[in-house]
Amino acid sequence: MYTPTHFAETDDAEIRRIVAAYPLASCVVAVDGAYVVNHIPVLWVEDRLIGHVALNNDLHRIADGMDAVFIFRAEDSYISPNWYPTKAETHRHVPTWNYSAVNLHGRLDFDHTRKAKLAVVGQLTKHFEGALNGDEAWKMRDAPRDYMDGMLDNIVAFSVDVARVEAKSKLSQNRESRDYDAVRDQMHAQGKHDLARRMGDRS
Amino acid sequence: MYTPTHFAETDDAEIRRIVAAYPLASCVVAVDGAYVVNHIPVLWVEDRLIGHVALNNDLHRIADGMDAVFIFRAEDSYISPNWYPTKAETHRHVPTWNYSAVNLHGRLDFDHTRKAKLAVVGQLTKHFEGALNGDEAWKMRDAPRDYMDGMLDNIVAFSVDVARVEAKSKLSQNRESRDYDAVRDQMHAQGKHDLARRMGDRS
Repeated sequence: MYTPTHFAETDDAEIRRIVAAYPLASCVVAVDGAYVVNHIPVLWVEDRLIGHVALNNDLHRIADGMDAVFIFRAEDSYISPNWYPTKAETHRHVPTWNYSAVNLHGRLDFDHTRKAKLAVVGQLTKHFEGALNGDEAWKMRDAPRDYMDGMLDNIVAFSVDVARVEAKSKLSQNRESRDYDAVRDQMHAQGKHDLARRMGDRS
Repeated sequence: MYTPTHFAETDDAEIRRIVAAYPLASCVVAVDGAYVVNHIPVLWVEDRLIGHVALNNDLHRIADGMDAVFIFRAEDSYISPNWYPTKAETHRHVPTWNYSAVNLHGRLDFDHTRKAKLAVVGQLTKHFEGALNGDEAWKMRDAPRDYMDGMLDNIVAFSVDVARVEAKSKLSQNRESRDYDAVRDQMHAQGKHDLARRMGDRS
């Protein structure tokens, strides 16, 4: 990922926050010269990504043990030169795009055991339901045993040994403060509060 | 991309709309066994993607003429079993994730000519500025000539011959109407109006 120094995201906590806030990864594996893309919600636990795919998804048959990249993206926005207060003075501005992105690279390993599948589904459920519904969170035991068994039979668990982390926060850091503040205000005005918040953290 | 029939997005107009509404592509190329990822705004014009990268971005040196995949993603959301009205009756539900995605595959070709760069920057500017600012749109000629020349010297244009289109709209189409409507209402309640609108189009 092309990352000029001023756009490098070097804050480990922020990198983890981006992945946690935008957990639907675009997973890419090159198999026999073709890109196989899947969009999969994952959790990043210590140095591993965990998740599951449908048994009907060929990914576990064609990509087991292969290197993959999991791509995470926070809110993004086109940035108009019109928004910079200094534009009227210098006119030395062009359009750009702001975004944050994390690319996690590592080996993808599938696991068909019931133990692994239960562990992954349990962790994902606890995380996403807990965050959303707290004490009212849906639990696996809410569903009948035969139904959950059927569901588990139809998935495959996976984990990824995260070997390389790339992260970029392209958030107008290269602008002077008047222009930077104006962009942040525009993000709020457009309802892109999460992007604005990421900028706010930097000013 | 694993795409059960009921989640296949087969509406060409909708596929174009997703790309147009979420134009910051995650571009992936496998080079010497490693995934090179870049996040690049593009336009899909007829059967080609067009865009540009920084001259400092190695992509044009290492991936010219190679196959690439450009990934576009609309709004997505975790879907809780608690949201289904039928849950209380059957408890036969598990969590899932809704999203729309388009993966465009094709050969990536770079062009260093001033003509190509001007054409790409002109089309991108006209499209994004026009959509945002209408009659007040920023134009290249707003900037001093020496500044624009310097900007053009520091980019490389590219185009992608789109050879394969994969598209998926995973929007609870496999749910009965009470549950479907409840999910759509939840999307609105969470401010995910674009996701809700894509569902609305289907009901």
